[in-house]
Amino acid sequence: MTQTDTLDIVRKVADLRARVKYWRDQGLSVAMVPTMGALHDGHLTLVRAALEAADRVVVSVFVNPTQFGPTEDLSRYPRQEATDAEALDGIGCHLMFAPTVEEMYPDGFATTISVKGVSEPLEGACRPGHFDGVATVVAKLLSQCGPDVALFGEKDWQQLAVIRRMARDLDLPVEIRGVPTVREADGLALSSRNAYLSAEQRVQAAALHRALVTVAEGVKAGQSPEELCHRAAAEVLAAGFAHVDYIEVRDAATMAPLTGNGRPGRVLAAAKLGTTRLIDNVAIEE
Amino acid sequence: MTQTDTLDIVRKVADLRARVKYWRDQGLSVAMVPTMGALHDGHLTLVRAALEAADRVVVSVFVNPTQFGPTEDLSRYPRQEATDAEALDGIGCHLMFAPTVEEMYPDGFATTISVKGVSEPLEGACRPGHFDGVATVVAKLLSQCGPDVALFGEKDWQQLAVIRRMARDLDLPVEIRGVPTVREADGLALSSRNAYLSAEQRVQAAALHRALVTVAEGVKAGQSPEELCHRAAAEVLAAGFAHVDYIEVRDAATMAPLTGNGRPGRVLAAAKLGTTRLIDNVAIEE
Repeated sequence: MTQTDTLDIVRKVADLRARVKYWRDQGLSVAMVPTMGALHDGHLTLVRAALEAADRVVVSVFVNPTQFGPTEDLSRYPRQEATDAEALDGIGCHLMFAPTVEEMYPDGFATTISVKGVSEPLEGACRPGHFDGVATVVAKLLSQCGPDVALFGEKDWQQLAVIRRMARDLDLPVEIRGVPTVREADGLALSSRNAYLSAEQRVQAAALHRALVTVAEGVKAGQSPEELCHRAAAEVLAAGFAHVDYIEVRDAATMAPLTGNGRPGRVLAAAKLGTTRLIDNVAIEE
Repeated sequence: MTQTDTLDIVRKVADLRARVKYWRDQGLSVAMVPTMGALHDGHLTLVRAALEAADRVVVSVFVNPTQFGPTEDLSRYPRQEATDAEALDGIGCHLMFAPTVEEMYPDGFATTISVKGVSEPLEGACRPGHFDGVATVVAKLLSQCGPDVALFGEKDWQQLAVIRRMARDLDLPVEIRGVPTVREADGLALSSRNAYLSAEQRVQAAALHRALVTVAEGVKAGQSPEELCHRAAAEVLAAGFAHVDYIEVRDAATMAPLTGNGRPGRVLAAAKLGTTRLIDNVAIEE
C-alpha cells in the first residue's frame, strides 16, 4: 500500500481493509463507488457525490468477468487504469481498489447471490446470469470495504434496483444511493461502451434517449404505454439502430409491469447500434 | 430492548445493531452463535466456547423456514423460547436475538445465496434447497450482528463447510469456528431432533455413531471405504433404523470423494429412525 498525499492504489483486500480501518479509527466516514473502470464524467460525478457524502472515498476498478456472458465484450471492454487513476487523483478521490481476478475469485470460489423478481426481466432476460454476477461482486466489494454509503449510477437503473433489493434482503449495513445519469448535450447517456461507436453511430445514438423521453411524456399524458413503446422502437430502428432488445415501461422499483397504482414508473431500453449495445432509462414524472 | 443484569432478548434487527454498536463503542469484541433454539448441551457448549472467544455473546434463536423442505418437520420442530432464555441466562450469555419470520423475511424478500460444490452432495442431495436456506440466513444473521467470530457445531459438518466457503467467498469480515460435537454416554450426538425419539429408538440411535467410528477406524487401517460404508449401513439398518440416506467418506472441506491425496477425511451419515432423521459425522484421524 503506497501512502502519499495523492491517490493511493491497493490491489489486495487485506490492504483495503487496513486502510479503511485506519480511517475508521479516526472516526471518518467512508463512501464507495464500485466501477469497471474506463472512467468518464458519469463516474466522476458519482465520485464527486461520494466526496460530498463521506470523509473518505474508495473507488473500485474491476472488470468483473462473472457479469459478462460468453458472447459479450469482456475481452474488448476498455481498460485504462493509469488514465483512471489520474482522473480520480484529479478530483480528490482517496483510494483506488484495483484487485486482480485471482484476488476476487480465488481457486475454489463457489458462491452466487441471486435476486428473484427485479433481476428477471429486461437486462436479466437479455443477459442470463448478468445480475447474479453483479449482485455477487457488489456484495463482495461492500463486504471487503465496509462503507457507510455506496453510490451507483442511475444509467444502470435495473442494476441499481437489484443492488437495493440485495442489500436490503441481506441486511448489509450500508446505504445504497443512486446518482442521476450524466448525458452529452444531445441526450446520449455517458457510457464506457460509447467508445465503441463510430462518428456516424455517435450521432445516431442520441435517438435512444429521445425515444425514451417521448414515451415518458406520452405515459404522463395518459397515452397507451404499449403503443408508445412500439412507436419508440420503430423510431430507434429508423434512426439507424440494428436491433431493439426492449423498450418498456416498468415499476421503477420492482421492474414489474406498471399497473397504474400510483407507484413510480420508469421507461427502460436496450438497443444495438452496429455491434454496440446501449442501455438507457428515464423517469416518468409524477 | 430490555436491559437488565441478566440476559436481554431483542426481536428487531435495529435493536440488535444498537446493542452491538454500544459494545463496539466500548471496544468490546463480539461472538455470535446462530441456533434454531430447542437448546441442548451441544448448543450450550458452543455458547461457552463463544464466551471464551469474545467479550460479549449473541445467540440467535430462529427456526428458519427457508431451510426446511415442504415435507420436512418445520411445523413440529421444537420451540421452547422461555426455556432457551433461561439456559442462556444461566451460563452468562449476553443477548438472545429472536426475530420473527416477518422481521427476517419481509414482503418482497427475493435474495438467495447458493454455494456450489460443497453444498451439493449428501445433505444437499437429500434436502434440495436446504443449504441455500442455511447460507442465506447465516449471511443475514452475520450481517445483522457483525460479530468478530461465529461458532457452529461440528455435528452439522457439511453445513459448517458450506458456511466456511460462503464466508470466504463473500469476504465476510468474521472468523467461522467449528466446535466439536457433544455426545451422550453411548455416543449419540446431541440434537434437538432427539426429542422425537421413543425410549426404544433412543437406545437404537447409538448405532449410527458406532457405525461411523468403525468406518473411520477401517479407513485409517487402509480398508476399502466403499466396502466399510456398505457394511456400516447394513449394521445401522440391523440396529433398527428404517432407512439410510447415506454413509460416505468425503474430503472434510470440499465434500468431494476422498482421493487419498493426504487431505483430511470425514465420515458422514444420515439415517431415519422411524420418522426421525438423524445425522452425524466423525473425523478420520491422521
